[in-house]
Amino acid sequence: MAKGIDPVKLAAFSTEALKKVGVPAGDAKITADILVAADLRGVDSHGVAHLQPFYIKGIQEGRINPTPNIKITSNSDTTALVDGDKGLGFVVGYRAMEEAIKRAKTHGTGWVTVTNSTHYGAGAYYAMMALKEKMIGLSMTQGGKGVVAPNTRGKGIGLNVLSVAVPSGKNAPWVLDMATGVVAGGKLEIAAREGKSIPEGWAVDQDGKPVTEVKDATGGILPLGGDPAHGSFKGFGLTMFIDILCGVLSGTMSVPEKSGVRGAPSPGGTGHCFGAIGVSGFMPVNMFEAGMERMFDALHNLPKAEGVDRLFVNGEMEATTEENRRKNGVPLHESIIQNLKDTAKELGVTYNL
Amino acid sequence: MAKGIDPVKLAAFSTEALKKVGVPAGDAKITADILVAADLRGVDSHGVAHLQPFYIKGIQEGRINPTPNIKITSNSDTTALVDGDKGLGFVVGYRAMEEAIKRAKTHGTGWVTVTNSTHYGAGAYYAMMALKEKMIGLSMTQGGKGVVAPNTRGKGIGLNVLSVAVPSGKNAPWVLDMATGVVAGGKLEIAAREGKSIPEGWAVDQDGKPVTEVKDATGGILPLGGDPAHGSFKGFGLTMFIDILCGVLSGTMSVPEKSGVRGAPSPGGTGHCFGAIGVSGFMPVNMFEAGMERMFDALHNLPKAEGVDRLFVNGEMEATTEENRRKNGVPLHESIIQNLKDTAKELGVTYNL
Repeated sequence: MAKGIDPVKLAAFSTEALKKVGVPAGDAKITADILVAADLRGVDSHGVAHLQPFYIKGIQEGRINPTPNIKITSNSDTTALVDGDKGLGFVVGYRAMEEAIKRAKTHGTGWVTVTNSTHYGAGAYYAMMALKEKMIGLSMTQGGKGVVAPNTRGKGIGLNVLSVAVPSGKNAPWVLDMATGVVAGGKLEIAAREGKSIPEGWAVDQDGKPVTEVKDATGGILPLGGDPAHGSFKGFGLTMFIDILCGVLSGTMSVPEKSGVRGAPSPGGTGHCFGAIGVSGFMPVNMFEAGMERMFDALHNLPKAEGVDRLFVNGEMEATTEENRRKNGVPLHESIIQNLKDTAKELGVTYNL
Repeated sequence: MAKGIDPVKLAAFSTEALKKVGVPAGDAKITADILVAADLRGVDSHGVAHLQPFYIKGIQEGRINPTPNIKITSNSDTTALVDGDKGLGFVVGYRAMEEAIKRAKTHGTGWVTVTNSTHYGAGAYYAMMALKEKMIGLSMTQGGKGVVAPNTRGKGIGLNVLSVAVPSGKNAPWVLDMATGVVAGGKLEIAAREGKSIPEGWAVDQDGKPVTEVKDATGGILPLGGDPAHGSFKGFGLTMFIDILCGVLSGTMSVPEKSGVRGAPSPGGTGHCFGAIGVSGFMPVNMFEAGMERMFDALHNLPKAEGVDRLFVNGEMEATTEENRRKNGVPLHESIIQNLKDTAKELGVTYNL
């Protein structure tokens, strides 16, 4: 790990790089901010590590449209369907979440589904956009075909994502940011990079047998719950619920219908779903936030397991990491720094990090 | 198991019994229909087995108000907060879901939170009320304090419930009906009744040690995922998300704040949350249902695990059970039949099942 990198400079650098491949300045800034926000919160698997390999390369190879014509169709007061025109998922997602919030301001709640989008990075950012309006934000996306459904063999369903953010008064915002598998794909990538084995119960081979080496995990990650006796039909159900909202209710294909081959043409692209629920539609905001504070206090006061000092409520760990990294910079693996330097050279951007 | 009981007669009997303890005829019928619907779908733990022990006794002992004054406050087009006045959760839930659907008809979506309610039985019924309007229905409730949060000791959080129903064209409706623990509490009750041990990974003792006997499961059921390495912070997060919507956004206490003692006075009672999302706010209903049919087909066509003939998509197993039980009657355990006979005698209702 090198010394931490200034997040403001990191976002400015990423913005310049994206502009060089044809992304308009405003859209480049949105994308860079969302990438760096993931790095700040410790979601390293969804930060600038992906800038070149996923997004710049995706634009260069024509899979991502740098100047999309994002179209919004609305059939009711509180709902909209957005066609992302294969734009950067960040830009499409940002606009779609803005639409959901706009509807919630007028009518109490807003729901937007998205088709023809691409990978949108870490989902929590969009959900957290609702916080400044004192709304509960939801963000969901189809993930790659990486999970094995219960009682089947092989990767058949999506590593889908649910993110929720809730205004929480004096506490860090309550934020859930989860993939619907036992683990996120990023954890397998990290184990592979570090040459470590993985715990039993994460993944299986083609025959459905448990594996402990990433190279053997050809049959997919298990759905949350693991096996049917421990709730895998719940993980399967959550996975498909997200797919229904993101994939079916947007007119995109559901993940099981897709080829699952990375880089293969995918009619409909990636689907997302965003929601905004205004707290004030139910009760005064200060009353709600007082309730969240009581909830946090009650959780913090639960008796701890042996050797545990503190229970981190969902979102608290990431907020602590963000506070630290805003002060001390974002630590990036040297392979990522090298990739950013190479990208700077290739695109003719000054490397000043 | 005795011969199956006619579900129509079972509902009529339950209605009469509820009327005898002061529930108005219409409310008694709603309650009875929801109880029998659970028995028909194979959710035996939430059917007429609970009629006397939970509900009739609850009314007799003053915990449940048979003639509640249900009040509805609405602060926006699409949201409402319902005060259930400690009425039967079935009646309160039914009215609240009707309000959500009403809002969705006019504005696309509707969301209703509920305070001061009581146990509402099986959650899927309310979610499924949205199906006839071609809406996606959601129903959530706080459960008892029965789950141990990750890194803590003892029962600290709720065995909360998420139910979702989706119109699915020619298929049985897609229905997710899950508690956020590794298993529902009913499975432990069944194991205890049958004198069977439980699989490791379901529950722990006061020190957090894994147990395989129900009598030792004093520390609570594990959250979905089991332990932190296998996603228990996701199960914890889902549990608290439901608690936030049902408990905090309704002005009820969150479960961690409650005593957790069955029958103890609980200010705020039980909280629920209901949602209705109109499909036509996004796309024509027939297009959506065609997408659901393709999704079901793709799932059914996944390669099966060894020894498995068919993948049951969430809701298909219950629909199959319902079809069978509508034809052949509802099988009830003899202890439940005896309880119904005793109840008939106590209340002066004719037992004719």
